[in-house]
Amino acid sequence: PRSHRIAVIAGDGIGREVMPEGLRAVQAAATRFGLALELHAFEWASCEYYAQHGQMMPDDWKAQLSGMDAIYFGAVGWPDTVPDHVSLWGSLLKFRREFDQYINLRPVRLFDGVPCPLAGKKPGDIDYLVVRENTEGEYTALGGVMFEGTEREIVVQESVYSRVGAERLLKYAFDLAQSRPKKHLSLATKSNGIAISMPWWDRQAEAMAAHYPGVAWDKHHIDILAARFVLQPERFDVVAATNLFGDILSDLGPATTGTIGLAPSANLNPERQFPSLFEPVHGSAPDIYGKNIANPIAMVWSGALMLDHLTGGQGAGRAAHDAIVSAIEAVLRSGPRTPDLGGSAGTTEVGEAIARHI
Amino acid sequence: PRSHRIAVIAGDGIGREVMPEGLRAVQAAATRFGLALELHAFEWASCEYYAQHGQMMPDDWKAQLSGMDAIYFGAVGWPDTVPDHVSLWGSLLKFRREFDQYINLRPVRLFDGVPCPLAGKKPGDIDYLVVRENTEGEYTALGGVMFEGTEREIVVQESVYSRVGAERLLKYAFDLAQSRPKKHLSLATKSNGIAISMPWWDRQAEAMAAHYPGVAWDKHHIDILAARFVLQPERFDVVAATNLFGDILSDLGPATTGTIGLAPSANLNPERQFPSLFEPVHGSAPDIYGKNIANPIAMVWSGALMLDHLTGGQGAGRAAHDAIVSAIEAVLRSGPRTPDLGGSAGTTEVGEAIARHI
Ligand SMILES: CC(C)[C@H](C(=O)O)[C@@H](O)C(=O)O
Ligand SMILES: CC(C)[C@H](C(=O)O)[C@@H](O)C(=O)O
Repeated sequence: PRSHRIAVIAGDGIGREVMPEGLRAVQAAATRFGLALELHAFEWASCEYYAQHGQMMPDDWKAQLSGMDAIYFGAVGWPDTVPDHVSLWGSLLKFRREFDQYINLRPVRLFDGVPCPLAGKKPGDIDYLVVRENTEGEYTALGGVMFEGTEREIVVQESVYSRVGAERLLKYAFDLAQSRPKKHLSLATKSNGIAISMPWWDRQAEAMAAHYPGVAWDKHHIDILAARFVLQPERFDVVAATNLFGDILSDLGPATTGTIGLAPSANLNPERQFPSLFEPVHGSAPDIYGKNIANPIAMVWSGALMLDHLTGGQGAGRAAHDAIVSAIEAVLRSGPRTPDLGGSAGTTEVGEAIARHI
Repeated sequence: PRSHRIAVIAGDGIGREVMPEGLRAVQAAATRFGLALELHAFEWASCEYYAQHGQMMPDDWKAQLSGMDAIYFGAVGWPDTVPDHVSLWGSLLKFRREFDQYINLRPVRLFDGVPCPLAGKKPGDIDYLVVRENTEGEYTALGGVMFEGTEREIVVQESVYSRVGAERLLKYAFDLAQSRPKKHLSLATKSNGIAISMPWWDRQAEAMAAHYPGVAWDKHHIDILAARFVLQPERFDVVAATNLFGDILSDLGPATTGTIGLAPSANLNPERQFPSLFEPVHGSAPDIYGKNIANPIAMVWSGALMLDHLTGGQGAGRAAHDAIVSAIEAVLRSGPRTPDLGGSAGTTEVGEAIARHI
């Protein structure tokens, strides 16, 4: 079998610190299960590249990445030199859109050995997946400013949703719910306040639900949904959400499991027309960069999701995924731990421990 | 001095159960501090009224309420009979807009005696105010559907912000921060993803901050802000947010203090051109209606905010406010407690206990 071609983009800040540990785990697992990987590192998609070239990526970025099977991505952003909306729209958000990675899959899980910020919760109480729409919705540069610079200034910001976009997201989420023991789906909505798009989302979900009689589902306004992530996390199994709501929920959920330093994500183009992208949920975290204290586990876990994806959720990739997740479990149980988990180990030490377990 | 005219609108669901307890406390405090109140109850702004009249309120609702000094409001919504966006846009959201209640002030505070869902937090660790823009932003019925009912269907939803709206919200929030011991303000943003409106909000906040050298401020993307409400609530003092972000944060914040059954809110027209509105953050909660188990404290505390507002934050109204808050503190410390706080007392029993303390 030909080797899997992986684009490695560390990006900015702690992206550069956690990437080597992610690669260490990915390579250990690939070796163990006989997965041939071909790694291609790219220095662009970083604010340093921007400083030199005035843009985040070379003009031919798409050509350079198009032959890849997956993109392993650290984090982008260095707001002191490049405003976040410039750096992100010039890299990560471009990948998500132009490679049509319309599913952002974000597991949220409380691990044994990780002190839970929610009192009295134990592993198993928090175990759900946020399925976030990843290409449209609230994230747009559409709209504008009128009477700019005057007291009459008015700003219009448009969110755009498509039937195709909602249907494929909901289909993926309902399929996923159907495949899980709890068979439950929750929709994030705000149809009581956002009067055009959200009632429309409610209707799309109702229509899709009709095809899944075996899946129980409910909808929650985003405000009370956020509250329930804290008060009743046991209620959740698969949570389907728009781009913005999914963004919020997939930081909040991991926070309730102790740290966002654990949370991985898979930006998927399920049809495999384009490479999918695997990245930690956390960002570049300039405030802790350079100290070797960033938790590498989100990066490592994202690597596991990548290997699983490469072989279609079965075979060697699945075995490699499971081995990495077991190694993460072992290290979370018995250490070493980075400071965000109350430990004093460095990024490298944790990465090495995980690789040893694999 | 003339008596204060208060419109009493219980609305739907548990709004009807908590309102009598709110009034019990408000009247006890008013009597004790010699505040003359004139209560006017309205049966409309409820889904029952809608069922009879095909609209949430009579045509002359504004005239009926315009002479009032304040509106004491329960909750609206009964989705089995009226879709939420119809009931809310036909009542509460109309009040907020047409009475230009542009500040929604929502205190979040952990009380002694209330088990905190966040491990290891004690009273004092969670004590901040969400200042939510309350008249514009993400809550609109602007936009539309194209190619409706076909596979090409596209939905556009517009958010609209005005310079006037942002400036007055920020001014109120910075003034408030300046008046508090910590003198700190956090702005909720999402300027890395929502590319027109949110960078604009960042700039408005920067400009306003220049007038407040004594206030330290920072901005947080809404995703990580939600995570920090769970992981580092001590960081927050005054949190300024748009309509949607403020909505989410003011359900999430109270959840971290044990229950949204405590959280009050003041929908303020600071210039007093129109009546301000005081209501619990929780909604009508059809699932627990009719059982006498709803926590009346959010309603009671909202009543305290109302009395404070009536006399401009001083004098008899302020004294009445403080007495109600002390009574809430006493009851939270030693019971009785409703089920959401682990107790088995009813709505009425808790309301009576508070009134006794006043
Ligand atoms: C009921 C709903 C429209 C309302 C809102 O979103 O503003 C409520 O959640 C609130 O926070 O007062
Ligand atoms: C960096 C930012 C644009 C991004 C997002 O909002 O999508 C991040 O928060 C994420 O969740 O992947």
